[in-house]
Amino acid sequence: MTVVSHNVRDLESFLSGSWRSGKGEGKLLVDAATSQPVARINADGLDLSEALNYGRSKGGAALGKMTFHERALMLKSLAQILMEKKEIFYQESFATGATRKDSWIDIEGGIGTLFAYSSKARREMPNTRVFTEGAIEPLSRDSTFSGQHILSPLKGIAVHINAYNFPCWGMLEKIAPSLIAGVPCLVKPASQTAYLTELMVRHILAADILPEGALQLLCGSANDLVDHVTGQDVVTFTGSAATGQMLRQNPSMVRNSTRFSMEADSLNAAVLGSDAKAGEPEFDLFVKEVAREVTVKAGQKCTAIRRVIVPRDAAEAVSDALKARFEKLRIGDPRDDTVTMGPLASAGQRDEVQSRVEELRTEAETVYGGSCSIPEKGAFEAPVLLYCDRPLASEAIHAVEAFGPVATLMPYDTIEDAVALTHKGKGSLVASLFTNDPAIAEEMVLGMAPFHGRVLIGNRQSAKTSTGHGSPLPMLVHGGPGRAGGGEELGGLRSVKHFMQRTAIQGAPNLLGAVTGRWVAGSNGRTESRHPFRKSLAELKIGDQLVTRERTVSLEDIEHFAEFTGDTFYAHMNEAAAKRNPFFEGRVAHGYLIVSFAAGLFVEPQEGPVLANYGVDNLRFLTPVNAGDALKVQLTAKEISPRISADYGEVRWDCLVSNQNDEPVAQYDVLTLVAKEWPSSS
Amino acid sequence: MTVVSHNVRDLESFLSGSWRSGKGEGKLLVDAATSQPVARINADGLDLSEALNYGRSKGGAALGKMTFHERALMLKSLAQILMEKKEIFYQESFATGATRKDSWIDIEGGIGTLFAYSSKARREMPNTRVFTEGAIEPLSRDSTFSGQHILSPLKGIAVHINAYNFPCWGMLEKIAPSLIAGVPCLVKPASQTAYLTELMVRHILAADILPEGALQLLCGSANDLVDHVTGQDVVTFTGSAATGQMLRQNPSMVRNSTRFSMEADSLNAAVLGSDAKAGEPEFDLFVKEVAREVTVKAGQKCTAIRRVIVPRDAAEAVSDALKARFEKLRIGDPRDDTVTMGPLASAGQRDEVQSRVEELRTEAETVYGGSCSIPEKGAFEAPVLLYCDRPLASEAIHAVEAFGPVATLMPYDTIEDAVALTHKGKGSLVASLFTNDPAIAEEMVLGMAPFHGRVLIGNRQSAKTSTGHGSPLPMLVHGGPGRAGGGEELGGLRSVKHFMQRTAIQGAPNLLGAVTGRWVAGSNGRTESRHPFRKSLAELKIGDQLVTRERTVSLEDIEHFAEFTGDTFYAHMNEAAAKRNPFFEGRVAHGYLIVSFAAGLFVEPQEGPVLANYGVDNLRFLTPVNAGDALKVQLTAKEISPRISADYGEVRWDCLVSNQNDEPVAQYDVLTLVAKEWPSSS
Repeated sequence: MTVVSHNVRDLESFLSGSWRSGKGEGKLLVDAATSQPVARINADGLDLSEALNYGRSKGGAALGKMTFHERALMLKSLAQILMEKKEIFYQESFATGATRKDSWIDIEGGIGTLFAYSSKARREMPNTRVFTEGAIEPLSRDSTFSGQHILSPLKGIAVHINAYNFPCWGMLEKIAPSLIAGVPCLVKPASQTAYLTELMVRHILAADILPEGALQLLCGSANDLVDHVTGQDVVTFTGSAATGQMLRQNPSMVRNSTRFSMEADSLNAAVLGSDAKAGEPEFDLFVKEVAREVTVKAGQKCTAIRRVIVPRDAAEAVSDALKARFEKLRIGDPRDDTVTMGPLASAGQRDEVQSRVEELRTEAETVYGGSCSIPEKGAFEAPVLLYCDRPLASEAIHAVEAFGPVATLMPYDTIEDAVALTHKGKGSLVASLFTNDPAIAEEMVLGMAPFHGRVLIGNRQSAKTSTGHGSPLPMLVHGGPGRAGGGEELGGLRSVKHFMQRTAIQGAPNLLGAVTGRWVAGSNGRTESRHPFRKSLAELKIGDQLVTRERTVSLEDIEHFAEFTGDTFYAHMNEAAAKRNPFFEGRVAHGYLIVSFAAGLFVEPQEGPVLANYGVDNLRFLTPVNAGDALKVQLTAKEISPRISADYGEVRWDCLVSNQNDEPVAQYDVLTLVAKEWPSSS
Repeated sequence: MTVVSHNVRDLESFLSGSWRSGKGEGKLLVDAATSQPVARINADGLDLSEALNYGRSKGGAALGKMTFHERALMLKSLAQILMEKKEIFYQESFATGATRKDSWIDIEGGIGTLFAYSSKARREMPNTRVFTEGAIEPLSRDSTFSGQHILSPLKGIAVHINAYNFPCWGMLEKIAPSLIAGVPCLVKPASQTAYLTELMVRHILAADILPEGALQLLCGSANDLVDHVTGQDVVTFTGSAATGQMLRQNPSMVRNSTRFSMEADSLNAAVLGSDAKAGEPEFDLFVKEVAREVTVKAGQKCTAIRRVIVPRDAAEAVSDALKARFEKLRIGDPRDDTVTMGPLASAGQRDEVQSRVEELRTEAETVYGGSCSIPEKGAFEAPVLLYCDRPLASEAIHAVEAFGPVATLMPYDTIEDAVALTHKGKGSLVASLFTNDPAIAEEMVLGMAPFHGRVLIGNRQSAKTSTGHGSPLPMLVHGGPGRAGGGEELGGLRSVKHFMQRTAIQGAPNLLGAVTGRWVAGSNGRTESRHPFRKSLAELKIGDQLVTRERTVSLEDIEHFAEFTGDTFYAHMNEAAAKRNPFFEGRVAHGYLIVSFAAGLFVEPQEGPVLANYGVDNLRFLTPVNAGDALKVQLTAKEISPRISADYGEVRWDCLVSNQNDEPVAQYDVLTLVAKEWPSSS
């Protein structure tokens, strides 16, 4: 086993702009199934402080010049190239012990996360460098002083320290939000499977899509890496609680209040609802999901099901059904495509799992212990199902994580007990509940929620579409409180914000507008003879404003609108009933009439660069309009977001409708698509 | 000074439901100005583990039963009572060394924060127990499986460890978001001024507004308090970096991933823009603000200005102007209402400040050093202004915090240098910039933002309305990265979320709806013969649904709408121009026509419990409508939020307009006010 064949790669680190080798002898990494050497890894003597500085300055500067959409398109291009090369990664992945199905999560799941972040960022963020968060906070009555929260990229580097079980996804799900935010990354994969991460990074860098310094790789021990972090850096960690807690107490991290996100041990639960008797679809879905989560990646998943919580009268049926499924497993070298479960990642990992199972056995009996056949060589381990009859009085079954194909079955007597059992995990990444009863779902999910980052409900309706207990998704948060580490990853834009600094900006509206790139109410608008709808995106400026003439609303208008549209609501049609209404002094104009007349006042009819009104945001009716009131509109270009890959972009207009007394009648954002260029727009 | 007069109060702690005294001799606290004894403090032997458990179970259960609005109204009642009693607190506050003006920030600023959170929560949160965050995340094409993030109160206790400088505000600004979230609190004020906190807590408890267990108080040393925290608790800390770092490394905190928010040292900067020459309003505003921030509360404010960064050619003028202002100070016992600056909080604090000034003097020269007269007794200290000519090459002036009336003036040569100087603070709570030039504001504020939690821009327009550099506001985040501790407080709902667990719930739409209390698209609606607009709030249920008949849109309708409203946009009126548009195949109906016709289809005209349509959210036009298309509406009660102090509540309706091919044409939320009861509504 220590005889190194000529196929053994010497892994390198990509630091400070070049591929570098460590100075030491290195550690040999072997194939999980065959025990053949795969690679040697070694990071001794590498200058990590220099690498962090290089990333911060070179990568930070380059990413900082790009907009959110530019970074998002960069991720999309990268994802496309990686997807084209996916077979290369699938081949390498077998050595980790992963079956092709297992590798799908890691490889295509990871690449899919890049795609998802790319499209989410372009949909939910403007094409700018600064993200304005939330509404303007009015801080003065006369609008001369207001507040606005903004998010800007941290001037540091994201250090991502990853676990061995997802060498691709673990990297990609973390660099996606970092890079969207504009923060460069240094990835340190766990040594055991670093050869796959290193291979993917080689292809990422060869694609020449990321700017220089945006991505660095450290293969080997972290050495003094974390000692050099600052208050502008972010450290994320996925792995064992012991290592995570050591990082959390690192003096540099503590001194600099460095942001730290940890995802560690988690004894995730699956709960069978008391309605889901044997024979019900939810019973079968539950058994299938538990069996899958115990065996996918040989149970080496932070989201795997470790605790199987079932009604006492269902325990035997569940146990029998799980045993039957385990019996059907084919355990072996994942290169054999009839194999359904591969080995653990290493012999060391197998020994670790076996010793954890011994700890669990102090409180639980073995109901299934590997009667299926497993190969003699390699890091194989058959599934283990334990049973604990008094789980509320037990501790180890809720605390000892055997990171392999191991789960403990435990019965509950009441819903309260079932919820209490999930809490005994002291914080988990995910729990699932199988029920078709909305009342049970409500009570149990709300009871479980404070201890979990994600709760999945399984039932017959979602049987075919459910993404499953074990799959973190780019748009949903991944992470859990307490034992699970207290971190939070993914969740769409939420995780992009982890790499940005939130700053409350206060000041006069025109200065706030200069900083945020958005027009702020209270600023002077720029009015000129040319209608702003005549301006292409290239010509339009934030603050370009139209103030319309007045239009008086007559009782005939209200009655006509009612008749024409069919909206004969009493507040518009019946003077006595409107007077009885607590909000009106008499018949009022329809809200939809107000916005329709407003459009009639502000629209410029000639063919021009404004292509479409695609929506309206935050419409509020502020003062009732009675017959005789005169409406006028102030329409101001508030936000301009050109699309990179189209001939147009979004323009958000601030629309204020007021009456003859200058009271605000309606306030809303009008959303339009505007052409970048328009030949006759002058 | 050690002779204890009969007026000296023995401070008690309110723990586990009763007032308790420590077992030890205690520490004597003296009046900052007179050095007379005020109180004795001692927490030896108190059972803090029991207190935490008591708060979690008793307080957590009681708060957990309340809705967000009920908790918000509770805070409002509390604030009203405290405001009525404010003179009691003002009198006690003199002993801390605070002038009446200083105390205003602490007392009325603190009570104002309760009011602000109360109204913000009622405005921005529904009247429920679970907060749904963000939109439904579609996870399947056929809507049988979706995701929704919810926030639920942590099942723990918030431990608030506070600094001596704001004995009232420091408590109130932290318990406000905790209690809104539904999480009980244990407050540990700094010993030096704990008598004022204790007095206020006595009045809070006497008011009998908070449920049992919702608020506890620990007067004296924290002893083993933090050793008992769990993963469901939150610890906040305001004070020195050394203590904060010790807390951050506490084994229980580390092991349980306990949420920790720290607000510590911060060398906040004020920057004078290069446009703000002597004689300009911004120059005078800058000098006034710096002088105020150095002297308010004798400089004992975490947001005080420590670094005064000015164009090199303005340094002398700024220095002279500040000296002139310092000369006019009247320093003395704050009970004398002609006094403009009181003493530091204690003699120990004064000694500490003096030794820090010595450290600063290794890099800076003294330009003003207390030529104004100060009383001999008491903890008085005159303002100190230092000057450092080469600030980019200096370290101590950016790192050593003298927590008193001390600031360092430093010149800059370029905008880049000025920004770099603010960064040298390695993370601050706040910076301010005085400029009237939008280009300077944009460049400098964006440059400063990543290192700051708040940036204030001062100029002539906001001169009268600005809330000032030093004032954290309930609606804006307070906290800063790096040296400032990395914490985040306030900021409206953001800080409420710090005390809640975010959980992604996945499942079939009707089960998701059962958990969130909101109707989820894809669920079956409940249609019946009675129109949902005929139902009062008491009768209406989530999921009540109306599906309307179809209405065909004719070309005459489009032309008539255009003529009536005046909206003759080319896409509605000109077939050729509409065809040239990239989104349309020909003339299309107005978006406002679609929503108007939709209302005509879904409205029930008779007088009834629906009182008003107060707005529309997230309106998106999804498929163009051409002449001949037939529209129909599905309107579903999505969220019902009764107001506690009114006869009505908000109902949010999901409104889906589709065409004859069942393609979605428009999607939006209709916001209505609906009466709680309606006599003839059956």
